[in-house]
Amino acid sequence: MQRIDTTVTGLGDCRHDSPLTELLYFRRSSHHWVDASDRVLIDDTAAMVAARGGGIADLPGFEAGGPRRKIFFDPSKTRVGIVTCGGLCPGLNNVIRGLVMELTRHYGVRRIVGFRNGYQGFIARYGYPVMDLDEAVVDDINEDGGTILGSSRGQQDPDEIVDCLEQLGVNILFVIGGDGSLHGAQRIADVIARRRLRIAIVGVPKTIDNDIPYIDHSFGFRTAFSRATESIRAAHIEARSAPGGVGLVKLMGRHSGFIACYAALAKNDADYVLIPEVPFTLDGEDGFLVHLRRKVATHGHAVIVVAEGAGQEHMVVEAGATDASGNARFGDIQRHLHQRITDDFAAHGTELNLKLLDPSYVIRSVPANPYDSVYCVRLAHAAVHAAMAGRTEVVVGRWHGRFVHIPISLAISSRNTVDPHGDLWLSVLESTGQPARWGPRPAQLKVA
Amino acid sequence: MQRIDTTVTGLGDCRHDSPLTELLYFRRSSHHWVDASDRVLIDDTAAMVAARGGGIADLPGFEAGGPRRKIFFDPSKTRVGIVTCGGLCPGLNNVIRGLVMELTRHYGVRRIVGFRNGYQGFIARYGYPVMDLDEAVVDDINEDGGTILGSSRGQQDPDEIVDCLEQLGVNILFVIGGDGSLHGAQRIADVIARRRLRIAIVGVPKTIDNDIPYIDHSFGFRTAFSRATESIRAAHIEARSAPGGVGLVKLMGRHSGFIACYAALAKNDADYVLIPEVPFTLDGEDGFLVHLRRKVATHGHAVIVVAEGAGQEHMVVEAGATDASGNARFGDIQRHLHQRITDDFAAHGTELNLKLLDPSYVIRSVPANPYDSVYCVRLAHAAVHAAMAGRTEVVVGRWHGRFVHIPISLAISSRNTVDPHGDLWLSVLESTGQPARWGPRPAQLKVA
Amino acid sequence: MQRIDTTVTGLGDCRHDSPLTELLYFRRSSHHWVDASDRVLIDDTAAMVAARGGGIADLPGFEAGGPRRKIFFDPSKTRVGIVTCGGLCPGLNNVIRGLVMELTRHYGVRRIVGFRNGYQGFIARYGYPVMDLDEAVVDDINEDGGTILGSSRGQQDPDEIVDCLEQLGVNILFVIGGDGSLHGAQRIADVIARRRLRIAIVGVPKTIDNDIPYIDHSFGFRTAFSRATESIRAAHIEARSAPGGVGLVKLMGRHSGFIACYAALAKNDADYVLIPEVPFTLDGEDGFLVHLRRKVATHGHAVIVVAEGAGQEHMVVEAGATDASGNARFGDIQRHLHQRITDDFAAHGTELNLKLLDPSYVIRSVPANPYDSVYCVRLAHAAVHAAMAGRTEVVVGRWHGRFVHIPISLAISSRNTVDPHGDLWLSVLESTGQPARWGPRPAQLKVA
Amino acid sequence: MQRIDTTVTGLGDCRHDSPLTELLYFRRSSHHWVDASDRVLIDDTAAMVAARGGGIADLPGFEAGGPRRKIFFDPSKTRVGIVTCGGLCPGLNNVIRGLVMELTRHYGVRRIVGFRNGYQGFIARYGYPVMDLDEAVVDDINEDGGTILGSSRGQQDPDEIVDCLEQLGVNILFVIGGDGSLHGAQRIADVIARRRLRIAIVGVPKTIDNDIPYIDHSFGFRTAFSRATESIRAAHIEARSAPGGVGLVKLMGRHSGFIACYAALAKNDADYVLIPEVPFTLDGEDGFLVHLRRKVATHGHAVIVVAEGAGQEHMVVEAGATDASGNARFGDIQRHLHQRITDDFAAHGTELNLKLLDPSYVIRSVPANPYDSVYCVRLAHAAVHAAMAGRTEVVVGRWHGRFVHIPISLAISSRNTVDPHGDLWLSVLESTGQPARWGPRPAQLKVA
Repeated sequence: MQRIDTTVTGLGDCRHDSPLTELLYFRRSSHHWVDASDRVLIDDTAAMVAARGGGIADLPGFEAGGPRRKIFFDPSKTRVGIVTCGGLCPGLNNVIRGLVMELTRHYGVRRIVGFRNGYQGFIARYGYPVMDLDEAVVDDINEDGGTILGSSRGQQDPDEIVDCLEQLGVNILFVIGGDGSLHGAQRIADVIARRRLRIAIVGVPKTIDNDIPYIDHSFGFRTAFSRATESIRAAHIEARSAPGGVGLVKLMGRHSGFIACYAALAKNDADYVLIPEVPFTLDGEDGFLVHLRRKVATHGHAVIVVAEGAGQEHMVVEAGATDASGNARFGDIQRHLHQRITDDFAAHGTELNLKLLDPSYVIRSVPANPYDSVYCVRLAHAAVHAAMAGRTEVVVGRWHGRFVHIPISLAISSRNTVDPHGDLWLSVLESTGQPARWGPRPAQLKVA
Repeated sequence: MQRIDTTVTGLGDCRHDSPLTELLYFRRSSHHWVDASDRVLIDDTAAMVAARGGGIADLPGFEAGGPRRKIFFDPSKTRVGIVTCGGLCPGLNNVIRGLVMELTRHYGVRRIVGFRNGYQGFIARYGYPVMDLDEAVVDDINEDGGTILGSSRGQQDPDEIVDCLEQLGVNILFVIGGDGSLHGAQRIADVIARRRLRIAIVGVPKTIDNDIPYIDHSFGFRTAFSRATESIRAAHIEARSAPGGVGLVKLMGRHSGFIACYAALAKNDADYVLIPEVPFTLDGEDGFLVHLRRKVATHGHAVIVVAEGAGQEHMVVEAGATDASGNARFGDIQRHLHQRITDDFAAHGTELNLKLLDPSYVIRSVPANPYDSVYCVRLAHAAVHAAMAGRTEVVVGRWHGRFVHIPISLAISSRNTVDPHGDLWLSVLESTGQPARWGPRPAQLKVA
Repeated sequence: MQRIDTTVTGLGDCRHDSPLTELLYFRRSSHHWVDASDRVLIDDTAAMVAARGGGIADLPGFEAGGPRRKIFFDPSKTRVGIVTCGGLCPGLNNVIRGLVMELTRHYGVRRIVGFRNGYQGFIARYGYPVMDLDEAVVDDINEDGGTILGSSRGQQDPDEIVDCLEQLGVNILFVIGGDGSLHGAQRIADVIARRRLRIAIVGVPKTIDNDIPYIDHSFGFRTAFSRATESIRAAHIEARSAPGGVGLVKLMGRHSGFIACYAALAKNDADYVLIPEVPFTLDGEDGFLVHLRRKVATHGHAVIVVAEGAGQEHMVVEAGATDASGNARFGDIQRHLHQRITDDFAAHGTELNLKLLDPSYVIRSVPANPYDSVYCVRLAHAAVHAAMAGRTEVVVGRWHGRFVHIPISLAISSRNTVDPHGDLWLSVLESTGQPARWGPRPAQLKVA
Repeated sequence: MQRIDTTVTGLGDCRHDSPLTELLYFRRSSHHWVDASDRVLIDDTAAMVAARGGGIADLPGFEAGGPRRKIFFDPSKTRVGIVTCGGLCPGLNNVIRGLVMELTRHYGVRRIVGFRNGYQGFIARYGYPVMDLDEAVVDDINEDGGTILGSSRGQQDPDEIVDCLEQLGVNILFVIGGDGSLHGAQRIADVIARRRLRIAIVGVPKTIDNDIPYIDHSFGFRTAFSRATESIRAAHIEARSAPGGVGLVKLMGRHSGFIACYAALAKNDADYVLIPEVPFTLDGEDGFLVHLRRKVATHGHAVIVVAEGAGQEHMVVEAGATDASGNARFGDIQRHLHQRITDDFAAHGTELNLKLLDPSYVIRSVPANPYDSVYCVRLAHAAVHAAMAGRTEVVVGRWHGRFVHIPISLAISSRNTVDPHGDLWLSVLESTGQPARWGPRPAQLKVA
């Protein structure tokens, strides 16, 4: 089993009394309160623990999140910056609100600025003025989706960003962003370290696709898949209300099909779920097209849920093409399936009423649901506690239900994906009834 | 640290090939798939593990849920019963549907009956005929709240119940119910054991209050607190639209204030959260009434969220009074607070517009939201896998995100409550700004 | 047929060019644009028209609402006041927002104040400062229910109110309120007339019960009954999930049962609708209690929707008792039915699980739905156009789909009620299947 | 003013007593009950009435809907068919349910069949069996969008359809469909008349675009525009969360922009509403593109709502191209605007983040909201009453709030459109602030 480095970087000694002393005064160590000296274990099964090969004391774990009695920064002298990067995700405003409220009400930090439109907000030539953030500004922003700070994709020169931080006297920078943005945050931290500055960089991982590792699930994810169910439902209604009705719903998920899986499980309407992690065969007797045609013949209609990153093997995309975030450009699998299905039904003289749904923008931009509202506010609290205690180059996350500190380097070291051998995908197969595997079946199974 | 017995009872050897062979064929052991021989650890921090005082091999854990390649019951000869007991909870129909679908589609079980109106459904004198359950019957029931089987509170004679099971030739009984109902299930299992019958009793723990231990959270809980936020919002709107406006929302939670805590965290509208786990003082300079009056004077209005079991110490309830489920009767804290607040404001000549909200029935009866829909269907799958493999006297639950088998005796051995020293309650304190402790403050804090 | 006086009072000649000239420039008379010289007929059937007994020129009609090319007030010198009175109703904030936006953006009025907490806001001793209203203040208020101005019930001395208006130099006062508040508005207008002031009093009728006459329906009404359906659904789920289940939902409607009727029609869940306009018999063979008991015996459960003003004949209320608005105090019909049903079932040894729901506060405080949002903004526009053109002692309303000016005196001259002989009540009877009449049937029908 | 022929065709004398006698027994003529001998006036303003040029007795009006004491068909011998045609629209299932419930429960009709997939369902070669409809089948269908009967576009041979009706012994056919389908219904009625059959053809006008004349609004329309607001909101959130953000939402409306207008009015998020009824200029100083670019420069973002039939003058579509319903094929205005805006911003070096939303399928397929639920059930009741009384070649509609019978010929004689001179469009202009007219302004206005 690979070694995992969970060591968290600190800016220095915590010498200030926390203003939360009163709240903490009555607190005792308990099952629901991980002491600062304790750590949250990464492994959670007997076999995983055994595979580590060491003793109990060697088990890897994360530093627990939460308020410390002593903190690194003097709140009265601390200036804080917040930036949101990348695509929209439900809960962004909740996190911003949570950060500002906790900093203001509980720590008494008085100077908080928001940088506009992602990393562009640090760069002078874009000309975006910073936005002062206080309780009044953020009071109701959680009622709305999106981000009041604006966002943008793509990287900016980390040296220019640190210049900006120095110029504004920022001590703590909260970066709310995904994989690419956290890579950027790491580069900013590297410059800060090189310049020997005392600026904390704390990330709040944002990924609507739920593809960041070492966190139970990302904020906004549950709101997103909940909303996605409405499009699956619409596709189902459309499909069954027309002869030869087929609904084809594209959902987010470039590398990870979590939204497609969960949305399909939440409704009983999907007949096929296609995700990047599980390749599929289009042609042949055991391929998708034949299966679909049979389904429509026997059931009258069918609904397909496809993650945007699925089936890339079926398309030719210009080599090296990338988008503004530097991500590899993807072929449009929905358009591809549309074409192939239409051709296939036409070739067999079968009536087809194919309806395409792409609800991405509506899903991205809804406000956080109550569950995510709670999660975002608690995540924001954890981020503030971490930063005030001088942690840096970390993201806050939740692992097995507990808030923890994860080194940025670890959070960007891999991707969380749907395990084709895991219980989630098994549930999807049980629920949809789609084949466990496309293409010819192994001889052993043919008999059964 | 106390010893925890996680041993699961089995009816006997698993000699039948599972009909899920095809689904399982390609499955490999993986991080997201706990092998049947593995177990899911109970402890998740270094300190908890160390406190066990043994080696890695001694760490207590739960048997993992999921399909087995060999099963105990021959599906073609298996008859299944389902019963729902106690108060309504979002997701009951989803669980029923999930059980029936999995049994029918994947295991090929053809005889499934539902018992009507809780344990009354087994008792001849009530005269409720059983309800045959198949795919057609359960197809859309998850769109509705409540339970198509009906429910009732209270116990029935376990011998009569087992008589009924024997008479109908039931091999597996799924009990969907809470603490009291699981006690009943244990008694049924005891009779079965005494009579040496091969009937599996598998529970799906139902508690809208989230008060069953050893599960991450109970099904329907998130739907419930999400819905409860609407009443808090209404209370807030009412309170701020009238001079001296105070909203007083009573939420479910006899012993555990989880709904109150989560609903309050999801909205920024609550000023006070009162739960059974944290006593409060009404009178005196540091008591609730003075604090409330000051809040209204300074903010113009206030919102109080109170769990139904909170503040019982302030009321006199007839000794030994119980309800139909045998639970201790509670004093009506909402009415009590209403009276005390009204008197207090009147005594001080302060204008008061007090609005009482009690949304319990609306919360209980809503359909499961998409998150709980997924959870319920997966829980139902796990329950079917457990039962078909001959497990009995167990409930299925989720622990640290993994489905597990928990002995009924363990599930009813204690209650899950909000830890006043845990991070959830800390978040509530941070979010509402209410005092960490009612009554006189310790001398040490007075200076600060 | 009674004479109806639809004459609208004007403050004087309209000598100022409207700033909306550009919008109006291209406008031509059309089917969807009622010219200022035209009027909207009150009658809409041949028989009603014939019954007037005059010629076509004599048919009574309302002055059409809408912008005038010439207006009475000089916008640059106009000061506007807004007040909201009485109970909450969805859409209050939308109307406030619509008034402020139209006054500001299109007429260029720059001084708008809101009076706090209803008519109390004009009275010095309450000490509520006025609230300056501009685009920024009202921008998002329509997302919330309630009223940002606060509200209160009851009257204040009209002379004091006019003193306040004079003191603040208010030229136009918009009163958003119900029957009682419009009576108050009329008294204010009387004082203004007596003092020969040029202050316009324009009402926007607010009644969640939909009981104001001469308007198609009141704003917020559709949002209200839509929301009420959720409680009927909950009652139905509760009722059918328990043996002897009966759901008893109390809805608003002191004199008019519109909410009860529409909410019941929107869902198929109600078995009985009891409204103030249709008396019912409780006892006897053809009474409600026997009917209900039979229903539960045959169907297993039942749902009753009762308007709060229904069945007052069954209760004894202290003579002359009134609430803060001066309205007659009502007996609590829900509690009364609770008692009678419980006694009746007990007397017959029938199992009963009676669940009471009273969703009033949640219904009142929700934001306006999209339909009401549109209606409120257009009503607000009409109110502004009326006031700027110097109309006074009028309310704006919609009659047969067109915005019109209705003298306050006419709007408070009677009540809109559910006609027991009209098609709405017939629809309710068809939908619920409840008896067309309680009590003994006439001999003629007994044979059929 | 044009002559309007409102004469309704009847199949013959009504000689059977209505089974609704009991319901009707106590009914008296009232303001809310139009007697069968009365009629609902078409005109509703003094000027419109005067323009008719006749006396009061000559005023044109519609026959009132509602139950008759004597009916044409003997319920016990009546067979009824129902068909749904054209695109989906919220409320289809509610209408089907309402028809079946009223026929069954109140009239005692026992044989009702649904034809599958629109007019294809009558044609043998498609092979769709009819679907028996009774209370159990339709009980909960109103919870879902779509139509349980399926639908299809396009016409079928009316003679074949009547052959089918004769063969099945159908006495009443309810056609739920739009303009094209009602044309088809008229052709069916023509064949029936030619063959001298006694089959009633009664239409329930379905048009999500609200473009059928002589009805206040079509069923499902309010649900549709309500849902459309969510996409406008999403577009707004997306637009304001990115530099140079522009949201471009395409809504239904081939000839009539009602959905676009109402959806835009319900939210404050749209800056431009483009509808088929109001041409616009793209280029030039006063054209749309310059205006948009300025808006983004000053406000940072903009939202455009465009009806699918808007701006057809800007595109070249193949002459004579039609879709399956025989409707003229439209150019894709959303794609066209996308191209033009992208080019224009690029040409001026302005940053642009353009997001396209097309929520049509989701809007079409949602269940009816409570308002439309009530409307649909009452419309269905009116349709049943009309048919049982032997009315044919009519549609039921609501005019000024009253249910009426409208000859099919009249309902398909013209289209309901947004009047550019009416008060609805004025409200849109007031609310969005977009120019009253694109292109150069008249000299008179330039000074102002």
